[in-house]
Amino acid sequence: MSGRLYGLGLGPGDPELLTLKAHRLLRAVPVIAYPLAAGGTSFARTIAAPHLPGGQREIAIPLEMSTDRAPGQAAYDTAAHAIAAELEAGFDVAVLCEGDPFFYGSFLYLFSRLAARYETTIVPGISSVMAGAAAIRRPLSARHDAVTILPATLPDEALRARIEAADSVAILKLGRHFGRVKTLIASMGLTGQAVYAERVSLPGERILPLAETGDAAPYFALVLLYRGAEPAILGPLAPAEPGR
Amino acid sequence: MSGRLYGLGLGPGDPELLTLKAHRLLRAVPVIAYPLAAGGTSFARTIAAPHLPGGQREIAIPLEMSTDRAPGQAAYDTAAHAIAAELEAGFDVAVLCEGDPFFYGSFLYLFSRLAARYETTIVPGISSVMAGAAAIRRPLSARHDAVTILPATLPDEALRARIEAADSVAILKLGRHFGRVKTLIASMGLTGQAVYAERVSLPGERILPLAETGDAAPYFALVLLYRGAEPAILGPLAPAEPGR
Repeated sequence: MSGRLYGLGLGPGDPELLTLKAHRLLRAVPVIAYPLAAGGTSFARTIAAPHLPGGQREIAIPLEMSTDRAPGQAAYDTAAHAIAAELEAGFDVAVLCEGDPFFYGSFLYLFSRLAARYETTIVPGISSVMAGAAAIRRPLSARHDAVTILPATLPDEALRARIEAADSVAILKLGRHFGRVKTLIASMGLTGQAVYAERVSLPGERILPLAETGDAAPYFALVLLYRGAEPAILGPLAPAEPGR
Repeated sequence: MSGRLYGLGLGPGDPELLTLKAHRLLRAVPVIAYPLAAGGTSFARTIAAPHLPGGQREIAIPLEMSTDRAPGQAAYDTAAHAIAAELEAGFDVAVLCEGDPFFYGSFLYLFSRLAARYETTIVPGISSVMAGAAAIRRPLSARHDAVTILPATLPDEALRARIEAADSVAILKLGRHFGRVKTLIASMGLTGQAVYAERVSLPGERILPLAETGDAAPYFALVLLYRGAEPAILGPLAPAEPGR
């Protein structure tokens, strides 16, 4: 009897934004696996750390990031092999995922290698898009609004067309694309409707009108752009409130 | 010292898909408020029910739904007044929200009435979009994919243009619009890439290829449409797996 593979969504960063289900499974599985960035840090494991019971076996997946965090396929092959060995031996394995497992993120590359062979459960997580809107304190969408989520890695023309077709827009994966995205939003006359959010739900969270940001942003930062048709409902952009 | 207003995201339906934070606050506040549908049922309160400690005061907000669940503004005025009275008396009030508080949903109408006067905390919740992708067992987005979320209430031409501009699409609020949406997707030749999900994460959850559905759908059902550019990563549409 093989073990079960879990894709555990851990949410945007605050360890209290795990679901009860992810929390229960995180504590129950004998094996956890997680991506390890260059430098030896794992954001996913950091989110999980306060909840870990100790004594679990750990499979770190060193991500050899190239341009735009394109994954090193060999690292996923190796990790899938190590995870499969645990599953074959009857042990459940939880892959720790920042945000939601099926909403971008590296879990996809393990899922595609393992889900056909092993029973797999996906536990959804809070996306940075929802957590960002909560931190900014402005609703993402009401009634008939269309919401579009865009990776900043897309070329300018693709971003422009999709922004024009949406009411609310979240632009993720900013990193080295941030300056270009800022320029594009300015060229569309939308800077005044855009808010920048960094380290959402974590200590050091920063929420700023896009107009007040510099030109550098980390990979895990996002811009929310509000073009919605119902400003009377949504109200003005609310400033971040201390002491939340 | 006034009380604090909480918008508590409760997730898609499974009471275990609450966050630890929502669970803590749900049990701590002296007052809860929630929308009450015609017929006297409250989906949000049902999700919360297994966690309620008992003894909390409850403010039910009767939603007089008209076309497309357009809210009865008078009901929100009355509810905001009752909530404000508790806040003025120093009591914290948690408004229970299906899914995420800032992602569609009726909390917006209380937020717009109260957030300028009272300290407000938004606790993000698992959206039905992420829970739907987890239930369908197919990733929503990878790498450079654009994701668009559309209310089925939009007219055909608006839906068509936005579907054409996206890679993955979630269409929400189906209800009486379902037949029209199905016809539209068929006319675009995309039926084979579309999956229908109903009662996601709840007993009686139904996941079907769109081609195999009837013409009726409840309001809380969604269609996920996969037009992504990386089918080799995403794999074929996986059937729902029993015993998850």
